[in-house]
Amino acid sequence: MNAEIIAVGSEMLTPHRQDTNSLYLTEKLNEIGVEVRFKCIVGDDQDDLVAATKLGMRRCDIILLIGGLGPTEDDLTREAVAEALGLNLQRDLEILARLEQRFAKRGYKMSENNVKQADVIASATVLPNPNGTAPGQWISGKYDGQERILILLPGPPNELKGLFEGECLPRLRERVPPQHIATRLLRIALMPESQVDARVAPIYKTYSDVQTTILAGAGEIQLHFRTRAASQEAAEARVEELAEKVENELGDAVFSRKGESLEQIVSYLLQMRGLTLAVAESCTGGLLAQRITSLSGSSRYFLGGAVVYSNPLKTQFANVPKTLIDKHGAVSREVAASLAEGIRKRCLSSYGIGITGVAGPTGGTEQKPVGLVYVALAGEEGTQVVERTFPGDRKRIRWFATQQALEMVRRALI
Amino acid sequence: MNAEIIAVGSEMLTPHRQDTNSLYLTEKLNEIGVEVRFKCIVGDDQDDLVAATKLGMRRCDIILLIGGLGPTEDDLTREAVAEALGLNLQRDLEILARLEQRFAKRGYKMSENNVKQADVIASATVLPNPNGTAPGQWISGKYDGQERILILLPGPPNELKGLFEGECLPRLRERVPPQHIATRLLRIALMPESQVDARVAPIYKTYSDVQTTILAGAGEIQLHFRTRAASQEAAEARVEELAEKVENELGDAVFSRKGESLEQIVSYLLQMRGLTLAVAESCTGGLLAQRITSLSGSSRYFLGGAVVYSNPLKTQFANVPKTLIDKHGAVSREVAASLAEGIRKRCLSSYGIGITGVAGPTGGTEQKPVGLVYVALAGEEGTQVVERTFPGDRKRIRWFATQQALEMVRRALI
Repeated sequence: MNAEIIAVGSEMLTPHRQDTNSLYLTEKLNEIGVEVRFKCIVGDDQDDLVAATKLGMRRCDIILLIGGLGPTEDDLTREAVAEALGLNLQRDLEILARLEQRFAKRGYKMSENNVKQADVIASATVLPNPNGTAPGQWISGKYDGQERILILLPGPPNELKGLFEGECLPRLRERVPPQHIATRLLRIALMPESQVDARVAPIYKTYSDVQTTILAGAGEIQLHFRTRAASQEAAEARVEELAEKVENELGDAVFSRKGESLEQIVSYLLQMRGLTLAVAESCTGGLLAQRITSLSGSSRYFLGGAVVYSNPLKTQFANVPKTLIDKHGAVSREVAASLAEGIRKRCLSSYGIGITGVAGPTGGTEQKPVGLVYVALAGEEGTQVVERTFPGDRKRIRWFATQQALEMVRRALI
Repeated sequence: MNAEIIAVGSEMLTPHRQDTNSLYLTEKLNEIGVEVRFKCIVGDDQDDLVAATKLGMRRCDIILLIGGLGPTEDDLTREAVAEALGLNLQRDLEILARLEQRFAKRGYKMSENNVKQADVIASATVLPNPNGTAPGQWISGKYDGQERILILLPGPPNELKGLFEGECLPRLRERVPPQHIATRLLRIALMPESQVDARVAPIYKTYSDVQTTILAGAGEIQLHFRTRAASQEAAEARVEELAEKVENELGDAVFSRKGESLEQIVSYLLQMRGLTLAVAESCTGGLLAQRITSLSGSSRYFLGGAVVYSNPLKTQFANVPKTLIDKHGAVSREVAASLAEGIRKRCLSSYGIGITGVAGPTGGTEQKPVGLVYVALAGEEGTQVVERTFPGDRKRIRWFATQQALEMVRRALI
């Protein structure tokens, strides 16, 4: 079965706002074996919405409309779908009573425009919204001789998710032929896409029943494997076999096989060994610390560190001798090593990281161009420094530098 | 005139990838007075592409197809558009020669599949691609009696932008009736949307010729004003008048009127006065430093600081007395103030910021719940501390806390 997702709202036809709900819905639909064939964005215009609904009903099995269920004049999804299907809207007194209660509970009197949220398309099943006022609606039946399911969902992501998981997924599972789908996601840091593909293509190409997608992000490659089989066991075995072969080929380069982020993997490894980390960042300006502390519970292994943007602070917080900076420059192998060793000593941590580089776009020279970064890792067993020249803009260079740092910690711990 | 944007590519129908080119195109189209009426995402399927192209030609004046112009079997946009319009594809020998040269220059022999990039739809104008191999194509004429423009654009953002600005915008300006459009963007930090709207709605509602859009993000409200008039001067005067009235109502709360970010405004103000800043972050874990240093040139006013995730580091790097932490707890008004004062002293900066709080989701207590944050600003004139309880998840709470810190610096400087 296939689906069309129609996101409703004129704000998503401006340069400022984007539909993101469809990513979540696609993930959930794929999990039960439904493919998304079209995605559309339609403004708050009744004629456009009617046309889009009719088109969806003609070309897909499942049509999901997101948004336009609120109380304002712009909220037209109910009216448009009723018109497209040639059905009436009926005011549901039970919903109306619940709406009034909801307002009363918060000490408000419900304003008149809210009543339209109690309008239900004839023949629709009302889907209670645990996190908001507007309920969803579910309509199924024949359209031009074809079996169709049409679902109206609220736009706010937390309302949509609660309602879709609670009310829609169980109903869809009953209607969609049972599927046995297995997926794997391998993540690889700091390897060029072409290099990954050259090494793994000969492997995955022999698995024509497994759909392989390679996605390249900043400093990371993701390998998505997905297959269907006659049983769940057979599907799992198939992607597992492929994932294992790819891992054997790439070795340590695969940092995650369940989709965890690099900072999450570093977190596991540090906690498993009871070790701690501290960082001294120059060009990344706090980005590394921020990534590490984005995880709850990071205080168990991350002590903190310093953002040493000025040279005096490199000395003040990480014991970098002024003479070393004068001799080699702030962006140098020596200063990176000294930052890592100094911050480790000052924080009494198992490992210390030092980062210094030219994030650009200004400040580059012929000898030290924009993108040049030194990352050092200091531990009991000594200090290693890596010199890299990263491509891209300031944001990308800073991100790559933190990928490099996390990858060095990971490799030291495996 | 209105437009439909069709993004082509099966990867954008997965949970992993999203069309972002349409945001850029929408901005550029709006600037010349073209509204985007529909956006669609279609997979690499010839029949689906043909249907989407025909539909676009029926309902919009301008149809932009993005992607599917590469050399692989999945790249079907040229073929599909030719089929939809009932036109032939013709191999363009000039493009072919340029392709071959391009490969030869890099020392490669062009592989056979690349030749299809030289296929041009009969009657199309070829749009040279300065940043890639596949040229764009421009087709204009009557379709079902209506004047239509259809544009084929390459998918990679840098190719799309170069080609659209260089080849498409000048041509579109000739076809689109000249428009005089003026816009303003006011940004407001840390005020609830309902409060902003309650105060400014009575003002913007009297400007029915100005389109007003209110967008709420994390810790920020954006007010977008847009109008058309008979002359550019009249349009500018109209939005300027509205923007001024709104600014008079909201006063200092408006931090930006040209779209600059809060960190950018703080950057201007610090540099204008020749002042410097240092930060000591606990719960935000480097996020504030990261935001400040995301701007090139931030070393002119940002010295650095410390991420004091553990209590000993609060003492080590920001001189917070251990007794103070023992007495009031790490998350307290007193420790926030001490962090700000200590880091200011250690870094010899004009201002020091201290942040401590409970970012969650764990670690909250009845007295100190998740979301509780103390932000302190220390300067020559003394120290102020603000206590806030922010809603949302860890990411949102941390972001709000850095908004609060930047807003305090801004208010201290205006």
